Amino acid sequence: MTKSLYTDLYELTMMQAARRAGTADRRCTFEVFTRSLPEGRRYGVFTGIGRVLDALADFRFDERDIDHLASLDLFDDDFLAFLADYRFTGSLSAYREGELFFPNSPVVRVDATFEQGVVLETLILSILNHDSAISSVGSRMKLAAAGRPLIEMGSRRVHEEAAVACARSAAIVGFGATSNIEAGRRYGIPTVGTSAHAFTLLFDSEADAFRAQIDSLGAGTSVLVDTYDIREAVRTAVEIAGRDMGAVRLDSGDLAAAAREVRAQLDELGATGTQITATSDLDEYRVFELREAPIDGYGIGTRLVTGGDHPAQGFVYKLVEREGEDGTMVPVAKKSADKATIAGRKRAYRVLGADGRATHELILPHQSGAEEDTLILPPGKQVRPLHVTLIDQGRCLDELGQQERIQRARQVHDAAIAELDDSVLSGQDGEVILPVVLSADAVTD
Amino acid sequence: MTKSLYTDLYELTMMQAARRAGTADRRCTFEVFTRSLPEGRRYGVFTGIGRVLDALADFRFDERDIDHLASLDLFDDDFLAFLADYRFTGSLSAYREGELFFPNSPVVRVDATFEQGVVLETLILSILNHDSAISSVGSRMKLAAAGRPLIEMGSRRVHEEAAVACARSAAIVGFGATSNIEAGRRYGIPTVGTSAHAFTLLFDSEADAFRAQIDSLGAGTSVLVDTYDIREAVRTAVEIAGRDMGAVRLDSGDLAAAAREVRAQLDELGATGTQITATSDLDEYRVFELREAPIDGYGIGTRLVTGGDHPAQGFVYKLVEREGEDGTMVPVAKKSADKATIAGRKRAYRVLGADGRATHELILPHQSGAEEDTLILPPGKQVRPLHVTLIDQGRCLDELGQQERIQRARQVHDAAIAELDDSVLSGQDGEVILPVVLSADAVTD
Repeated sequence: MTKSLYTDLYELTMMQAARRAGTADRRCTFEVFTRSLPEGRRYGVFTGIGRVLDALADFRFDERDIDHLASLDLFDDDFLAFLADYRFTGSLSAYREGELFFPNSPVVRVDATFEQGVVLETLILSILNHDSAISSVGSRMKLAAAGRPLIEMGSRRVHEEAAVACARSAAIVGFGATSNIEAGRRYGIPTVGTSAHAFTLLFDSEADAFRAQIDSLGAGTSVLVDTYDIREAVRTAVEIAGRDMGAVRLDSGDLAAAAREVRAQLDELGATGTQITATSDLDEYRVFELREAPIDGYGIGTRLVTGGDHPAQGFVYKLVEREGEDGTMVPVAKKSADKATIAGRKRAYRVLGADGRATHELILPHQSGAEEDTLILPPGKQVRPLHVTLIDQGRCLDELGQQERIQRARQVHDAAIAELDDSVLSGQDGEVILPVVLSADAVTD
Repeated sequence: MTKSLYTDLYELTMMQAARRAGTADRRCTFEVFTRSLPEGRRYGVFTGIGRVLDALADFRFDERDIDHLASLDLFDDDFLAFLADYRFTGSLSAYREGELFFPNSPVVRVDATFEQGVVLETLILSILNHDSAISSVGSRMKLAAAGRPLIEMGSRRVHEEAAVACARSAAIVGFGATSNIEAGRRYGIPTVGTSAHAFTLLFDSEADAFRAQIDSLGAGTSVLVDTYDIREAVRTAVEIAGRDMGAVRLDSGDLAAAAREVRAQLDELGATGTQITATSDLDEYRVFELREAPIDGYGIGTRLVTGGDHPAQGFVYKLVEREGEDGTMVPVAKKSADKATIAGRKRAYRVLGADGRATHELILPHQSGAEEDTLILPPGKQVRPLHVTLIDQGRCLDELGQQERIQRARQVHDAAIAELDDSVLSGQDGEVILPVVLSADAVTD
């Protein structure tokens, strides 16, 4: 299936109008950025670009698509013929997947003719706004968990197809597993899961249910112990599974208190290796509060897959530079007070001190075609360029499969976090951690 | 493509364990309900069931699916063979699509064996939680707009596939059009769109851009006038399009003030029929505040497709009754204090007064197989049963196409809103509008 109709109609009406006016083939640069982060967020995590690359490979208008567009009575034959031949032949640079971003970070830069570039707006934004919203909150949860394993289990709270993408974003920021089978198939993410309350309720007694689960999945399974009485359930479970029982899961009530009681009970029963997993409306705040509780791992659903009250990242896709009548490139920007854009094609760097800690994000103008000036840095400062060319004149340079892309993105994410001040490690609210500056002078600060 | 792997792994491990224990074919009833509405919401709007029916038709495990499951080393050959033959042969009743719901409304009831019913949990919830979240906030926006037309234009803020479902939910609650081309194709929703700021910025002057658009789309088009100076843009646009220009669009700043100025200017210029469309982070609160402004229609994106801060409805899918060892049906419920379930299979009615206004939602126990008792109603009260059987022993009884389902759902929604007190018509916050009562005695109140 093609991806080309996952597009706002106005992209096509603009293309046709520009073609008729003779401006459709003007060279343009579009950039993706967000004007702000959600309140309290110290950084965002850029994910989705690995999915964008696959979507662009499928971005063409097949016969069925063209037939539908023809039926709208908006487009002429010449334009429909153009669409039938459409292949993206422009270039695309982006921050590496898993990289951090801040307000005004130009996370994607598309260099293409107007008609080549404008048509990608909706699909690129859909993917990046969704995926980055999940990874941005998921990264906080990972930090709050302080090394304890996390499972993504939110599929039932989001659109069925978005659920698969959520598991992908979560894997990049360090969730070790997902409950979603399709995510396991498509992206090679480990899938886990044992039983729900319905399973316990199906049986005539809790003991029958536990026996059935342990018979089927072995003593290493995770038993859900809060359907009736937790203390009674733990006793029954250990009786059946033995001291080597894998884990118990708590899914309601006061998790910290319950975990402490269950831990003491398990230890008393000799099940000292049995782990305690907590689930139930967890987020980075609850996980942080639970740091002192004897909980060995967390399953996180709703608050992760809904982006923690911020389900869309707020990325926009803006024309920042285009060819003028005389063939030179002209920086452009909307002037409106509340939605102003910074004109001009940009390059971006993470600036680091001698200790390897990030101090700034540096954005510099970079007209298309111009040489990249060498940055003159004060002693002890170093920079890391943030843009990587992913598509060069239509040719995708990233030949990795999705599973390898996810692994690489996880490394990128870990490395970028390691460059930040330790104050982010709690995963809690605060100020945006790095200033984004628009002039090389600021590097000398 | 099958839909069966859009499923949490534990549904399958539970099925296999129940099969091994001999309880998998116990007759069960599962119900979908939400424990609460988001704060301030007076009602929810039930949508997605029309998509569930199509998804269930595709819910089977093909060879590729079975191969993947076999690779997990969790399932035996007997179970995989069972999955390969899986077809849903149970029954499903639900509230009509477009109907209102409240906390504890049993919006879906699945009667099936355990193994037949439990496996549908994730997919059913994914669809309903997503789609109903969008329609629930969209309905408020529709009311706040007090009859002015609404366009759904949020695709870029959500997962690309969810975007299509958003347009569907929005259409059911009265949005007249969408920007999403695929939603137009798949669901027959009218698609609209003209131009963005990038189009204006592409040209050497705003006048060039307007001329190009009007040449291509005709004077009836909607011209975006806030790229540079609104007053100047309106003057230019009318100069080019003439007094019959279709509309101008405002997408930033103080929309009320700008709309008043633009209206006055348009009238002065003789363009008295030119409409004003407003877009820019609108929601039911902003739309309500703009009631007095001379705005003729609204385009709504982010706040609609993200469910207005509540992107997931909170529906759960719970086992409420199952066959016992002796073949009789046993109501069951999880006991946990904060997540208790109301045991037993239920039927549901909207109770209306003599004036046709709804006064309650009435939930009564209804053991599977039992006759439906006639309700004894006090004079002047009438009831409307809320469940409709959609799948009867595996056979789908709803043969409408998606486009007809959407039309019918729109009528259901309108009729259900008309039964409510006028206090909902603002679309603003308040108390839950109807009490949900669990006893027929309450009807006499």
